[in-house]
Amino acid sequence: MDDKRFNERYEQYRAAVEDYLDSLFTGSAPWKTLYDAMRYSVLSGGKRIRPVLTLECARLCGLEDWRLALPFACALELVHTYSLIHDDLPCMDDDELRRGKPTNHVVYGETMATLAGDALQPEAYRLIAEAEGMTDGAKLNAVRALARASGADGMVAGQVLDLTDYGRDRETLTTLCDRKTCFMIKGAAELGCAAAGADAERTAALGKYASLLGLAFQIRDDLLDVVGDEATFGKPIGSDKGEGKNTFADLLGVEGCAREVRRLTDEAVAALSGIEGGEFLTVLARRLAERDK
Amino acid sequence: MDDKRFNERYEQYRAAVEDYLDSLFTGSAPWKTLYDAMRYSVLSGGKRIRPVLTLECARLCGLEDWRLALPFACALELVHTYSLIHDDLPCMDDDELRRGKPTNHVVYGETMATLAGDALQPEAYRLIAEAEGMTDGAKLNAVRALARASGADGMVAGQVLDLTDYGRDRETLTTLCDRKTCFMIKGAAELGCAAAGADAERTAALGKYASLLGLAFQIRDDLLDVVGDEATFGKPIGSDKGEGKNTFADLLGVEGCAREVRRLTDEAVAALSGIEGGEFLTVLARRLAERDK
Repeated sequence: MDDKRFNERYEQYRAAVEDYLDSLFTGSAPWKTLYDAMRYSVLSGGKRIRPVLTLECARLCGLEDWRLALPFACALELVHTYSLIHDDLPCMDDDELRRGKPTNHVVYGETMATLAGDALQPEAYRLIAEAEGMTDGAKLNAVRALARASGADGMVAGQVLDLTDYGRDRETLTTLCDRKTCFMIKGAAELGCAAAGADAERTAALGKYASLLGLAFQIRDDLLDVVGDEATFGKPIGSDKGEGKNTFADLLGVEGCAREVRRLTDEAVAALSGIEGGEFLTVLARRLAERDK
Repeated sequence: MDDKRFNERYEQYRAAVEDYLDSLFTGSAPWKTLYDAMRYSVLSGGKRIRPVLTLECARLCGLEDWRLALPFACALELVHTYSLIHDDLPCMDDDELRRGKPTNHVVYGETMATLAGDALQPEAYRLIAEAEGMTDGAKLNAVRALARASGADGMVAGQVLDLTDYGRDRETLTTLCDRKTCFMIKGAAELGCAAAGADAERTAALGKYASLLGLAFQIRDDLLDVVGDEATFGKPIGSDKGEGKNTFADLLGVEGCAREVRRLTDEAVAALSGIEGGEFLTVLARRLAERDK
Protein backbone atom coordinates (compact mmCIF):
# COMPACT_ATOMS: atom_id res chain seq x y z
CA MET A 1 0.00 0.00 0.00
CA ASP A 2 1.54 3.31 -1.05
CA ASP A 3 1.65 6.41 1.13
CA LYS A 4 -1.14 8.15 -0.72
CA ARG A 5 -3.68 5.37 -0.26
CA PHE A 6 -2.68 4.88 3.37
CA ASN A 7 -3.05 8.58 4.08
CA GLU A 8 -6.42 8.72 2.37
CA ARG A 9 -7.83 5.85 4.38
CA TYR A 10 -6.35 7.09 7.66
CA GLU A 11 -7.80 10.53 7.04
CA GLN A 12 -11.19 9.05 6.15
CA TYR A 13 -11.27 7.14 9.45
CA ARG A 14 -9.94 10.08 11.44
CA ALA A 15 -12.45 12.53 10.00
CA ALA A 16 -15.33 10.12 10.69
CA VAL A 17 -14.14 9.74 14.29
CA GLU A 18 -13.90 13.52 14.76
CA ASP A 19 -17.39 14.00 13.34
CA TYR A 20 -18.84 11.30 15.55
CA LEU A 21 -17.13 12.63 18.68
CA ASP A 22 -18.20 16.16 17.80
CA SER A 23 -21.83 15.02 17.82
CA LEU A 24 -21.63 14.03 21.50
CA PHE A 25 -22.56 16.08 24.61
CA THR A 26 -23.98 18.96 22.61
CA GLY A 27 -27.42 19.54 24.10
CA SER A 28 -28.34 22.30 26.49
CA ALA A 29 -28.74 21.42 30.15
CA PRO A 30 -28.25 23.12 33.51
CA TRP A 31 -25.03 21.06 33.72
CA LYS A 32 -23.73 22.28 30.33
CA THR A 33 -20.34 23.10 31.91
CA LEU A 34 -19.87 19.36 32.27
CA TYR A 35 -20.50 18.85 28.55
CA ASP A 36 -18.05 21.66 27.77
CA ALA A 37 -15.34 20.13 29.94
CA MET A 38 -15.89 16.71 28.38
CA ARG A 39 -15.82 18.11 24.83
CA TYR A 40 -12.71 20.17 25.53
CA SER A 41 -10.64 17.04 26.03
CA VAL A 42 -12.54 14.71 23.70
CA LEU A 43 -12.00 17.13 20.81
CA SER A 44 -8.48 18.23 21.66
CA GLY A 45 -7.00 16.40 18.69
CA GLY A 46 -4.51 13.63 18.94
CA LYS A 47 -3.74 11.08 16.29
CA ARG A 48 -6.82 8.92 17.03
CA ILE A 49 -4.71 5.80 16.63
CA ARG A 50 -6.99 3.69 18.82
CA PRO A 51 -10.29 4.38 17.02
CA VAL A 52 -8.55 4.11 13.64
CA LEU A 53 -7.33 0.69 14.73
CA THR A 54 -10.87 -0.32 15.73
CA LEU A 55 -12.30 0.76 12.39
CA GLU A 56 -9.59 -0.91 10.31
CA CYS A 57 -9.87 -4.17 12.30
CA ALA A 58 -13.64 -4.12 11.77
CA ARG A 59 -13.17 -3.60 8.02
CA LEU A 60 -10.46 -6.23 7.84
CA CYS A 61 -12.64 -8.79 9.64
CA GLY A 62 -15.43 -8.32 7.15
CA LEU A 63 -17.73 -5.60 8.47
CA GLU A 64 -19.10 -4.26 5.21
CA ASP A 65 -19.77 -0.72 6.42
CA TRP A 66 -16.96 0.21 8.80
CA ARG A 67 -18.94 3.28 9.91
CA LEU A 68 -21.16 0.96 11.93
CA ALA A 69 -18.17 0.43 14.21
CA LEU A 70 -17.86 4.14 15.02
CA PRO A 71 -19.72 3.89 18.37
CA PHE A 72 -17.35 1.12 19.50
CA ALA A 73 -14.28 3.01 18.24
CA CYS A 74 -15.34 6.24 19.92
CA ALA A 75 -16.35 4.48 23.15
CA LEU A 76 -12.77 3.39 23.65
CA GLU A 77 -11.55 6.86 22.72
CA LEU A 78 -13.81 8.32 25.45
CA VAL A 79 -12.25 5.99 28.00
CA HIS A 80 -8.79 6.90 26.73
CA THR A 81 -9.72 10.57 27.09
CA TYR A 82 -10.95 10.18 30.68
CA SER A 83 -7.62 8.55 31.53
CA LEU A 84 -5.70 11.52 30.11
CA ILE A 85 -7.83 14.01 32.07
CA HIS A 86 -7.33 12.14 35.34
CA ASP A 87 -3.62 11.44 34.64
CA ASP A 88 -3.01 15.17 34.36
CA LEU A 89 -4.69 16.00 37.69
CA PRO A 90 -2.59 17.57 40.47
CA CYS A 91 -2.88 14.36 42.52
CA MET A 92 -1.54 12.33 39.56
CA ASP A 93 1.11 13.67 37.15
CA ASP A 94 0.16 17.30 37.81
CA ASP A 95 0.65 18.37 34.19
CA GLU A 96 -0.46 21.75 32.91
CA LEU A 97 0.02 21.08 29.21
CA ARG A 98 -1.25 18.27 26.97
CA ARG A 99 -0.67 18.37 23.22
CA GLY A 100 0.45 21.96 23.64
CA LYS A 101 -2.84 23.05 25.22
CA PRO A 102 -3.73 23.71 28.87
CA THR A 103 -4.94 20.53 30.56
CA ASN A 104 -8.57 20.08 31.51
CA HIS A 105 -8.21 21.01 35.18
CA VAL A 106 -6.24 24.14 34.28
CA VAL A 107 -9.21 25.32 32.20
CA TYR A 108 -12.18 23.92 34.14
CA GLY A 109 -10.78 23.39 37.62
CA GLU A 110 -9.97 20.18 39.44
CA THR A 111 -13.54 19.41 40.46
CA MET A 112 -14.99 19.65 36.97
CA ALA A 113 -12.03 17.80 35.40
CA THR A 114 -12.54 14.91 37.80
CA LEU A 115 -16.26 14.83 37.03
CA ALA A 116 -15.72 15.11 33.26
CA GLY A 117 -13.47 12.06 33.45
CA ASP A 118 -15.96 10.25 35.65
CA ALA A 119 -18.81 10.89 33.20
CA LEU A 120 -16.86 9.77 30.13
CA GLN A 121 -16.73 6.19 31.39
CA PRO A 122 -20.47 5.42 31.54
CA GLU A 123 -21.01 7.39 28.33
CA ALA A 124 -18.60 5.01 26.60
CA TYR A 125 -20.66 1.99 27.64
CA ARG A 126 -23.83 3.79 26.63
CA LEU A 127 -22.44 4.28 23.12
CA ILE A 128 -21.71 0.57 22.85
CA ALA A 129 -25.08 -0.52 24.24
CA GLU A 130 -26.97 1.85 21.93
CA ALA A 131 -24.91 1.21 18.77
CA GLU A 132 -27.11 0.68 15.71
CA GLY A 133 -26.63 -2.25 13.38
CA MET A 134 -24.66 -4.30 15.92
CA THR A 135 -25.83 -7.64 17.32
CA ASP A 136 -26.28 -8.14 21.05
CA GLY A 137 -23.35 -10.55 21.00
CA ALA A 138 -21.08 -8.00 19.32
CA LYS A 139 -22.05 -5.33 21.84
CA LEU A 140 -21.38 -7.59 24.81
CA ASN A 141 -18.01 -8.64 23.43
CA ALA A 142 -17.22 -4.95 23.10
CA VAL A 143 -18.34 -4.16 26.68
CA ARG A 144 -16.22 -7.01 27.99
CA ALA A 145 -13.15 -6.03 25.96
CA LEU A 146 -13.38 -2.38 26.99
CA ALA A 147 -13.98 -3.18 30.66
CA ARG A 148 -11.01 -5.54 30.81
CA ALA A 149 -8.72 -3.18 28.92
CA SER A 150 -9.46 -0.26 31.23
CA GLY A 151 -10.22 -1.95 34.55
CA ALA A 152 -8.48 -2.88 37.79
CA ASP A 153 -6.19 -5.34 36.00
CA GLY A 154 -5.83 -3.20 32.90
CA MET A 155 -5.12 0.47 32.36
CA VAL A 156 -5.72 1.51 35.97
CA ALA A 157 -3.32 -1.19 37.19
CA GLY A 158 -0.67 0.30 34.89
CA GLN A 159 -1.34 3.77 36.23
CA VAL A 160 -1.01 2.48 39.81
CA LEU A 161 2.37 0.95 38.97
CA ASP A 162 3.43 4.18 37.28
CA LEU A 163 2.54 6.31 40.30
CA THR A 164 3.72 4.04 43.09
CA ASP A 165 7.12 2.91 44.13
CA TYR A 166 7.27 0.08 41.64
CA GLY A 167 10.63 -1.26 40.45
CA ARG A 168 11.85 -0.01 37.13
CA ASP A 169 14.00 -2.76 35.71
CA ARG A 170 13.17 -3.87 32.20
CA GLU A 171 10.72 -6.56 33.25
CA THR A 172 8.69 -4.40 35.61
CA LEU A 173 8.73 -1.47 33.20
CA THR A 174 7.37 -3.76 30.48
CA THR A 175 4.57 -4.95 32.80
CA LEU A 176 3.75 -1.34 33.62
CA CYS A 177 3.67 -0.30 29.97
CA ASP A 178 1.71 -3.38 29.01
CA ARG A 179 -1.10 -2.54 31.45
CA LYS A 180 -1.03 1.21 31.10
CA THR A 181 -0.73 1.49 27.31
CA CYS A 182 -0.88 -1.84 25.47
CA PHE A 183 -4.09 -3.12 27.06
CA MET A 184 -6.07 -0.23 25.61
CA ILE A 185 -4.47 -0.47 22.17
CA LYS A 186 -5.17 -4.20 22.17
CA GLY A 187 -8.68 -3.39 23.36
CA ALA A 188 -9.14 -1.08 20.38
CA ALA A 189 -8.33 -3.94 18.01
CA GLU A 190 -10.64 -6.28 19.94
CA LEU A 191 -13.54 -3.84 19.71
CA GLY A 192 -13.09 -3.78 15.92
CA CYS A 193 -13.06 -7.57 15.85
CA ALA A 194 -16.17 -7.63 18.04
CA ALA A 195 -17.96 -5.27 15.65
CA ALA A 196 -17.28 -7.61 12.73
CA GLY A 197 -18.03 -10.79 14.66
CA ALA A 198 -14.49 -12.07 14.04
CA ASP A 199 -13.52 -15.52 15.31
CA ALA A 200 -11.19 -16.11 18.27
CA GLU A 201 -8.14 -16.85 16.11
CA ARG A 202 -8.32 -13.66 14.10
CA THR A 203 -9.12 -11.64 17.25
CA ALA A 204 -6.06 -13.08 18.96
CA ALA A 205 -3.80 -12.31 15.98
CA LEU A 206 -4.98 -8.70 15.72
CA GLY A 207 -4.79 -8.36 19.50
CA LYS A 208 -1.18 -9.55 19.42
CA TYR A 209 -0.36 -7.10 16.63
CA ALA A 210 -1.92 -4.25 18.62
CA SER A 211 -0.17 -5.22 21.84
CA LEU A 212 3.25 -5.21 20.19
CA LEU A 213 2.39 -1.98 18.42
CA GLY A 214 1.57 -0.48 21.81
CA LEU A 215 4.88 -1.44 23.35
CA ALA A 216 6.81 -0.15 20.33
CA PHE A 217 4.75 3.04 20.58
CA GLN A 218 5.64 3.55 24.23
CA ILE A 219 9.35 2.92 23.68
CA ARG A 220 9.33 5.35 20.74
CA ASP A 221 7.58 7.80 23.08
CA ASP A 222 10.31 7.47 25.70
CA LEU A 223 12.92 7.90 22.98
CA LEU A 224 11.27 11.04 21.62
CA ASP A 225 11.11 12.35 25.15
CA VAL A 226 14.89 12.30 25.20
CA VAL A 227 15.78 13.30 21.65
CA GLY A 228 12.67 15.24 20.59
CA ASP A 229 12.19 18.89 21.31
CA GLU A 230 9.36 20.53 23.18
CA ALA A 231 7.94 22.35 20.15
CA THR A 232 7.37 19.27 18.02
CA PHE A 233 6.35 16.96 20.84
CA GLY A 234 3.92 19.27 22.61
CA LYS A 235 5.00 18.59 26.18
CA PRO A 236 7.99 19.59 28.27
CA ILE A 237 10.99 17.39 27.48
CA GLY A 238 11.80 14.90 30.18
CA SER A 239 8.56 15.58 32.04
CA ASP A 240 8.19 11.87 32.82
CA LYS A 241 11.75 11.64 34.07
CA GLY A 242 11.52 14.52 36.50
CA GLU A 243 10.68 12.27 39.44
CA GLY A 244 13.69 10.01 38.94
CA LYS A 245 11.74 7.16 37.36
CA ASN A 246 13.46 4.99 34.80
CA THR A 247 12.09 4.98 31.27
CA PHE A 248 13.01 2.64 28.42
CA ALA A 249 15.48 5.30 27.27
CA ASP A 250 17.33 5.02 30.59
CA LEU A 251 17.33 1.24 30.50
CA LEU A 252 18.13 0.63 26.84
CA GLY A 253 19.79 3.84 25.68
CA VAL A 254 18.85 5.71 22.52
CA GLU A 255 20.25 3.10 20.15
CA GLY A 256 18.81 0.23 22.16
CA CYS A 257 15.35 1.84 22.08
CA ALA A 258 15.51 2.34 18.32
CA ARG A 259 16.53 -1.31 17.89
CA GLU A 260 13.74 -2.53 20.16
CA VAL A 261 11.13 -0.45 18.34
CA ARG A 262 12.25 -2.03 15.04
CA ARG A 263 12.16 -5.53 16.52
CA LEU A 264 8.69 -5.11 18.04
CA THR A 265 7.38 -3.56 14.85
CA ASP A 266 8.66 -6.50 12.80
CA GLU A 267 7.01 -8.86 15.27
CA ALA A 268 3.74 -6.92 15.09
CA VAL A 269 3.76 -7.11 11.30
CA ALA A 270 4.55 -10.82 11.49
CA ALA A 271 1.42 -11.35 13.62
CA LEU A 272 -0.60 -10.22 10.59
CA SER A 273 0.84 -12.93 8.34
CA GLY A 274 -2.27 -15.11 8.37
CA ILE A 275 -4.58 -12.19 7.62
CA GLU A 276 -5.42 -11.10 4.11
CA GLY A 277 -5.50 -7.38 3.41
CA GLY A 278 -3.30 -6.34 6.35
CA GLU A 279 -1.33 -3.76 4.34
CA PHE A 280 -2.87 -0.77 6.08
CA LEU A 281 -1.91 -2.11 9.51
CA THR A 282 1.58 -2.92 8.23
CA VAL A 283 2.11 0.64 7.06
CA LEU A 284 0.56 1.94 10.30
CA ALA A 285 3.11 0.00 12.37
CA ARG A 286 6.01 1.27 10.23
CA ARG A 287 4.75 4.84 10.42
CA LEU A 288 4.42 4.77 14.20
CA ALA A 289 7.91 3.30 14.52
CA GLU A 290 9.36 6.19 12.56
CA ARG A 291 7.22 9.04 13.86
CA ASP A 292 8.99 12.07 15.33
CA LYS A 293 6.06 13.49 17.32
CA MET B 1 -45.70 -8.63 55.45
CA ASP B 2 -44.72 -8.58 59.11
CA ASP B 3 -41.45 -7.18 60.43
CA LYS B 4 -39.89 -10.56 61.00
CA ARG B 5 -40.39 -11.77 57.45
CA PHE B 6 -39.24 -8.44 56.02
CA ASN B 7 -36.12 -8.49 58.15
CA GLU B 8 -35.33 -12.06 57.21
CA ARG B 9 -35.57 -11.38 53.50
CA TYR B 10 -33.66 -8.11 53.74
CA GLU B 11 -30.91 -9.82 55.69
CA GLN B 12 -30.79 -12.70 53.21
CA TYR B 13 -30.30 -10.25 50.33
CA ARG B 14 -27.81 -8.12 52.25
CA ALA B 15 -25.69 -11.09 53.29
CA ALA B 16 -25.62 -12.40 49.71
CA VAL B 17 -24.52 -8.98 48.49
CA GLU B 18 -21.76 -8.77 51.12
CA ASP B 19 -20.52 -12.23 50.20
CA TYR B 20 -20.52 -11.46 46.51
CA LEU B 21 -18.71 -8.12 47.00
CA ASP B 22 -16.23 -9.77 49.34
CA SER B 23 -15.27 -12.19 46.55
CA LEU B 24 -14.08 -9.34 44.31
CA PHE B 25 -10.54 -7.92 43.91
CA THR B 26 -8.93 -10.55 46.10
CA GLY B 27 -6.07 -11.89 43.98
CA SER B 28 -2.43 -11.04 44.41
CA ALA B 29 -0.91 -8.63 41.92
CA PRO B 30 1.84 -6.00 41.91
CA TRP B 31 -1.02 -3.48 42.08
CA LYS B 32 -2.61 -5.09 45.15
CA THR B 33 -2.81 -1.67 46.86
CA LEU B 34 -5.44 -0.80 44.27
CA TYR B 35 -7.48 -3.87 45.24
CA ASP B 36 -7.13 -2.93 48.91
CA ALA B 37 -8.32 0.62 48.29
CA MET B 38 -11.28 -0.62 46.25
CA ARG B 39 -12.24 -3.23 48.86
CA TYR B 40 -11.91 -0.72 51.70
CA SER B 41 -14.82 1.31 50.36
CA VAL B 42 -16.77 -1.50 48.71
CA LEU B 43 -16.91 -3.39 52.01
CA SER B 44 -17.38 -0.42 54.32
CA GLY B 45 -20.95 -1.35 55.15
CA GLY B 46 -23.93 0.76 54.35
CA LYS B 47 -27.50 -0.41 54.14
CA ARG B 48 -27.11 -1.86 50.60
CA ILE B 49 -30.51 -0.46 49.68
CA ARG B 50 -29.69 -0.31 45.97
CA PRO B 51 -28.61 -3.93 45.49
CA VAL B 52 -31.45 -5.13 47.74
CA LEU B 53 -33.82 -3.23 45.46
CA THR B 54 -32.29 -4.90 42.39
CA LEU B 55 -32.65 -8.37 43.89
CA GLU B 56 -36.23 -7.84 45.06
CA CYS B 57 -37.27 -6.38 41.70
CA ALA B 58 -35.72 -9.37 39.93
CA ARG B 59 -37.59 -11.76 42.23
CA LEU B 60 -40.82 -9.79 41.90
CA CYS B 61 -40.58 -9.85 38.10
CA GLY B 62 -40.26 -13.59 38.02
CA LEU B 63 -36.57 -14.46 38.16
CA GLU B 64 -36.74 -17.85 39.82
CA ASP B 65 -33.30 -17.71 41.45
CA TRP B 66 -32.75 -14.13 42.58
CA ARG B 67 -29.08 -14.95 43.22
CA LEU B 68 -28.51 -14.86 39.46
CA ALA B 69 -29.10 -11.11 39.67
CA LEU B 70 -26.24 -10.60 42.15
CA PRO B 71 -23.72 -9.48 39.47
CA PHE B 72 -26.18 -6.82 38.28
CA ALA B 73 -26.99 -5.72 41.83
CA CYS B 74 -23.34 -5.51 42.82
CA ALA B 75 -22.34 -3.77 39.57
CA LEU B 76 -24.54 -0.83 40.50
CA GLU B 77 -23.21 -0.92 44.06
CA LEU B 78 -19.65 -0.64 42.68
CA VAL B 79 -20.64 2.44 40.70
CA HIS B 80 -22.36 3.87 43.78
CA THR B 81 -19.17 3.20 45.76
CA TYR B 82 -16.93 4.94 43.21
CA SER B 83 -19.19 7.99 43.46
CA LEU B 84 -18.82 8.08 47.25
CA ILE B 85 -15.02 7.81 47.02
CA HIS B 86 -14.79 10.64 44.50
CA ASP B 87 -17.43 12.77 46.29
CA ASP B 88 -15.29 12.70 49.41
CA LEU B 89 -12.10 13.86 47.63
CA PRO B 90 -10.55 17.19 48.64
CA CYS B 91 -11.53 18.71 45.27
CA MET B 92 -15.17 17.67 45.86
CA ASP B 93 -16.81 17.69 49.31
CA ASP B 94 -13.49 17.22 51.11
CA ASP B 95 -14.91 14.89 53.74
CA GLU B 96 -12.74 12.94 56.14
CA LEU B 97 -15.42 10.68 57.54
CA ARG B 98 -17.96 8.41 55.87
CA ARG B 99 -20.20 6.12 57.90
CA GLY B 100 -18.02 6.94 60.88
CA LYS B 101 -14.82 5.70 59.22
CA PRO B 102 -11.96 7.63 57.58
CA THR B 103 -12.69 8.25 53.90
CA ASN B 104 -10.74 6.43 51.21
CA HIS B 105 -8.30 9.24 50.44
CA VAL B 106 -7.55 9.73 54.14
CA VAL B 107 -6.44 6.11 54.31
CA TYR B 108 -4.95 5.52 50.85
CA GLY B 109 -4.11 9.03 49.68
CA GLU B 110 -5.75 11.13 47.01
CA THR B 111 -4.02 9.44 44.07
CA MET B 112 -5.04 5.92 45.02
CA ALA B 113 -8.56 7.00 45.99
CA THR B 114 -9.05 8.59 42.58
CA LEU B 115 -7.74 5.46 40.86
CA ALA B 116 -9.83 3.12 43.03
CA GLY B 117 -12.92 5.05 41.98
CA ASP B 118 -11.80 5.02 38.35
CA ALA B 119 -11.31 1.25 38.37
CA LEU B 120 -14.67 0.48 39.99
CA GLN B 121 -16.55 1.74 36.94
CA PRO B 122 -15.21 -0.68 34.30
CA GLU B 123 -15.31 -3.51 36.86
CA ALA B 124 -19.04 -2.88 37.21
CA TYR B 125 -19.59 -3.34 33.47
CA ARG B 126 -17.37 -6.41 33.51
CA LEU B 127 -19.59 -7.99 36.18
CA ILE B 128 -22.65 -7.41 34.03
CA ALA B 129 -21.04 -8.66 30.82
CA GLU B 130 -19.74 -11.80 32.52
CA ALA B 131 -22.87 -12.59 34.58
CA GLU B 132 -23.83 -16.27 34.37
CA GLY B 133 -27.35 -17.36 33.58
CA MET B 134 -28.35 -14.02 32.06
CA THR B 135 -29.36 -13.58 28.40
CA ASP B 136 -27.47 -11.18 26.14
CA GLY B 137 -30.57 -9.01 26.01
CA ALA B 138 -30.80 -8.82 29.80
CA LYS B 139 -27.13 -7.89 30.08
CA LEU B 140 -27.41 -5.13 27.50
CA ASN B 141 -30.50 -3.71 29.17
CA ALA B 142 -28.49 -3.67 32.39
CA VAL B 143 -25.49 -1.96 30.76
CA ARG B 144 -27.79 0.66 29.26
CA ALA B 145 -29.66 1.28 32.52
CA LEU B 146 -26.46 1.58 34.56
CA ALA B 147 -24.75 3.86 32.03
CA ARG B 148 -27.75 6.19 31.86
CA ALA B 149 -28.21 6.27 35.62
CA SER B 150 -24.59 7.18 36.30
CA GLY B 151 -23.60 9.16 33.19
CA ALA B 152 -23.35 12.76 32.02
CA ASP B 153 -27.12 13.25 32.29
CA GLY B 154 -27.46 11.12 35.39
CA MET B 155 -25.56 10.94 38.66
CA VAL B 156 -22.61 13.03 37.47
CA ALA B 157 -24.97 15.78 36.27
CA GLY B 158 -26.43 15.84 39.78
CA GLN B 159 -22.99 16.09 41.32
CA VAL B 160 -22.13 18.98 38.99
CA LEU B 161 -25.26 20.83 40.09
CA ASP B 162 -24.43 20.10 43.71
CA LEU B 163 -20.91 21.50 43.42
CA THR B 164 -21.55 24.48 41.18
CA ASP B 165 -23.41 27.68 41.75
CA TYR B 166 -26.79 26.23 40.92
CA GLY B 167 -29.95 27.79 42.29
CA ARG B 168 -31.46 26.17 45.34
CA ASP B 169 -35.14 26.84 45.15
CA ARG B 170 -37.41 23.84 45.48
CA GLU B 171 -37.54 23.10 41.74
CA THR B 172 -33.80 23.20 41.16
CA LEU B 173 -33.07 21.28 44.35
CA THR B 174 -35.49 18.59 43.18
CA THR B 175 -33.72 18.38 39.79
CA LEU B 176 -30.38 18.13 41.58
CA CYS B 177 -31.57 15.39 43.90
CA ASP B 178 -33.30 13.56 41.05
CA ARG B 179 -30.07 13.29 39.06
CA LYS B 180 -27.68 12.81 41.94
CA THR B 181 -29.66 10.30 43.98
CA CYS B 182 -32.88 9.13 42.34
CA PHE B 183 -31.37 8.13 38.99
CA MET B 184 -29.20 5.49 40.63
CA ILE B 185 -31.99 4.16 42.86
CA LYS B 186 -34.25 3.97 39.81
CA GLY B 187 -31.35 2.32 37.97
CA ALA B 188 -31.13 -0.31 40.70
CA ALA B 189 -34.78 -1.23 40.15
CA GLU B 190 -34.27 -1.28 36.38
CA LEU B 191 -31.32 -3.64 36.65
CA GLY B 192 -33.50 -6.04 38.62
CA CYS B 193 -36.20 -5.79 35.98
CA ALA B 194 -33.57 -6.37 33.27
CA ALA B 195 -32.36 -9.50 35.07
CA ALA B 196 -35.88 -10.93 35.06
CA GLY B 197 -36.69 -9.83 31.51
CA ALA B 198 -39.59 -7.72 32.78
CA ASP B 199 -41.77 -5.87 30.27
CA ALA B 200 -41.71 -2.10 29.79
CA GLU B 201 -44.85 -1.47 31.86
CA ARG B 202 -43.62 -3.27 34.94
CA THR B 203 -40.15 -1.74 34.55
CA ALA B 204 -41.71 1.73 34.39
CA ALA B 205 -43.85 1.09 37.50
CA LEU B 206 -40.92 -0.17 39.56
CA GLY B 207 -38.75 2.64 38.22
CA LYS B 208 -41.34 5.16 39.35
CA TYR B 209 -41.52 3.55 42.79
CA ALA B 210 -37.73 3.68 43.10
CA SER B 211 -37.50 7.27 41.93
CA LEU B 212 -40.05 8.45 44.50
CA LEU B 213 -38.33 6.36 47.15
CA GLY B 214 -35.06 8.10 46.26
CA LEU B 215 -36.50 11.56 46.67
CA ALA B 216 -38.14 10.64 49.98
CA PHE B 217 -34.82 9.15 51.07
CA GLN B 218 -32.93 12.36 50.28
CA ILE B 219 -35.44 14.56 52.06
CA ARG B 220 -35.32 12.27 55.08
CA ASP B 221 -31.52 12.55 54.88
CA ASP B 222 -31.67 16.34 54.94
CA LEU B 223 -34.08 16.18 57.84
CA LEU B 224 -31.84 13.82 59.82
CA ASP B 225 -28.96 16.15 59.10
CA VAL B 226 -30.81 18.79 61.09
CA VAL B 227 -32.46 16.81 63.83
CA GLY B 228 -30.18 13.75 64.04
CA ASP B 229 -27.08 13.66 66.12
CA GLU B 230 -23.57 12.93 64.99
CA ALA B 231 -23.26 9.66 66.87
CA THR B 232 -26.26 7.94 65.30
CA PHE B 233 -25.83 9.41 61.81
CA GLY B 234 -22.10 8.85 61.39
CA LYS B 235 -21.18 12.19 59.89
CA PRO B 236 -20.76 15.70 61.28
CA ILE B 237 -24.15 17.37 61.66
CA GLY B 238 -24.85 20.04 59.12
CA SER B 239 -21.83 19.07 57.00
CA ASP B 240 -23.80 19.67 53.81
CA LYS B 241 -25.01 23.04 55.04
CA GLY B 242 -21.60 24.42 55.86
CA GLU B 243 -21.19 26.09 52.48
CA GLY B 244 -24.45 27.98 52.70
CA LYS B 245 -26.32 25.72 50.32
CA ASN B 246 -30.02 25.22 50.82
CA THR B 247 -31.27 21.75 51.63
CA PHE B 248 -34.86 20.52 51.73
CA ALA B 249 -34.79 21.21 55.46
CA ASP B 250 -34.11 24.90 54.78
CA LEU B 251 -36.78 25.13 52.12
CA LEU B 252 -39.56 23.08 53.75
CA GLY B 253 -38.74 23.17 57.44
CA VAL B 254 -38.69 20.11 59.69
CA GLU B 255 -42.44 19.61 59.60
CA GLY B 256 -42.65 20.25 55.87
CA CYS B 257 -39.93 17.67 55.23
CA ALA B 258 -41.69 15.06 57.33
CA ARG B 259 -44.93 15.72 55.48
CA GLU B 260 -43.21 15.51 52.07
CA VAL B 261 -41.51 12.24 52.98
CA ARG B 262 -44.90 10.77 53.90
CA ARG B 263 -46.49 12.05 50.69
CA LEU B 264 -43.73 10.69 48.45
CA THR B 265 -43.73 7.38 50.26
CA ASP B 266 -47.48 7.02 49.76
CA GLU B 267 -47.00 7.84 46.08
CA ALA B 268 -44.20 5.28 45.80
CA VAL B 269 -46.35 2.60 47.36
CA ALA B 270 -49.23 3.56 45.04
CA ALA B 271 -46.94 2.96 42.04
CA LEU B 272 -46.82 -0.69 43.11
CA SER B 273 -50.60 -1.11 42.95
CA GLY B 274 -50.60 -3.09 39.71
CA ILE B 275 -47.89 -5.43 40.88
CA GLU B 276 -48.62 -8.60 42.77
CA GLY B 277 -46.36 -9.45 45.69
CA GLY B 278 -45.12 -5.90 46.32
CA GLU B 279 -45.36 -6.17 50.13
CA PHE B 280 -41.60 -6.21 50.68
CA LEU B 281 -41.16 -2.99 48.70
CA THR B 282 -44.08 -1.43 50.56
CA VAL B 283 -42.47 -2.17 53.90
CA LEU B 284 -39.10 -1.02 52.57
CA ALA B 285 -40.55 2.36 51.63
CA ARG B 286 -42.21 2.74 55.05
CA ARG B 287 -39.01 1.75 56.84
CA LEU B 288 -36.88 4.23 54.94
CA ALA B 289 -39.39 6.98 55.61
CA GLU B 290 -39.15 6.36 59.33
CA ARG B 291 -35.45 5.60 59.67
CA ASP B 292 -33.41 7.66 62.11
CA LYS B 293 -29.96 6.94 60.67
